[in-house]
Amino acid sequence: MATITKKELIDRISEKTNNKRVVVKRIVQYFLDEIIDELGHDNRLEFRDFGVFESKRRAARVAQNPKTLERVQVPPKRTVKFKVGRLMKMRLSKQDEAPNDRSVAVES
Amino acid sequence: MATITKKELIDRISEKTNNKRVVVKRIVQYFLDEIIDELGHDNRLEFRDFGVFESKRRAARVAQNPKTLERVQVPPKRTVKFKVGRLMKMRLSKQDEAPNDRSVAVES
Repeated sequence: MATITKKELIDRISEKTNNKRVVVKRIVQYFLDEIIDELGHDNRLEFRDFGVFESKRRAARVAQNPKTLERVQVPPKRTVKFKVGRLMKMRLSKQDEAPNDRSVAVES
Repeated sequence: MATITKKELIDRISEKTNNKRVVVKRIVQYFLDEIIDELGHDNRLEFRDFGVFESKRRAARVAQNPKTLERVQVPPKRTVKFKVGRLMKMRLSKQDEAPNDRSVAVES
């Protein structure tokens, strides 16, 4: 299993699309920043085939330790849920049925 | 809560970066396709500040129905896990402390 970074994808996209690295970098960074921004405003992002990003919010609450009966203030929590889209799901399951050379290589 | 689409972000990025819509669209689409492709090959994607995408695999197994004792073949399953990055986490919690006009508007 390899870890792919943003830089690596930017290099690849720049090569494949014949756009300057600096242009690709700026667009990709804007794209990621816009996603963060929208999730911060409780909005949902739906990218067809890819998936859905959703911000989940849990309100602050008072919990009780069942052993000591002590009450504890639990702060509000925010997380992001990602739900896999149609195309991604298809590609992932296809991979399981007929793994190609590359996936075999990364598993070893 | 609003739903933001890929098209909407592409329009926005095109405007902000002064790049043609068609260029932004191609780069964003390549970016999403590369992510799907890498996850399909069991690779992990790490975008600093944004988060980490990881493909999780559960092997095929035989399960047993505890009531009927019937054995059932459970197929392998693949899902994608998204872990929120540092900057996104900061922005999300900041939002909770000091919600701005916009977040108030979308909540109503």
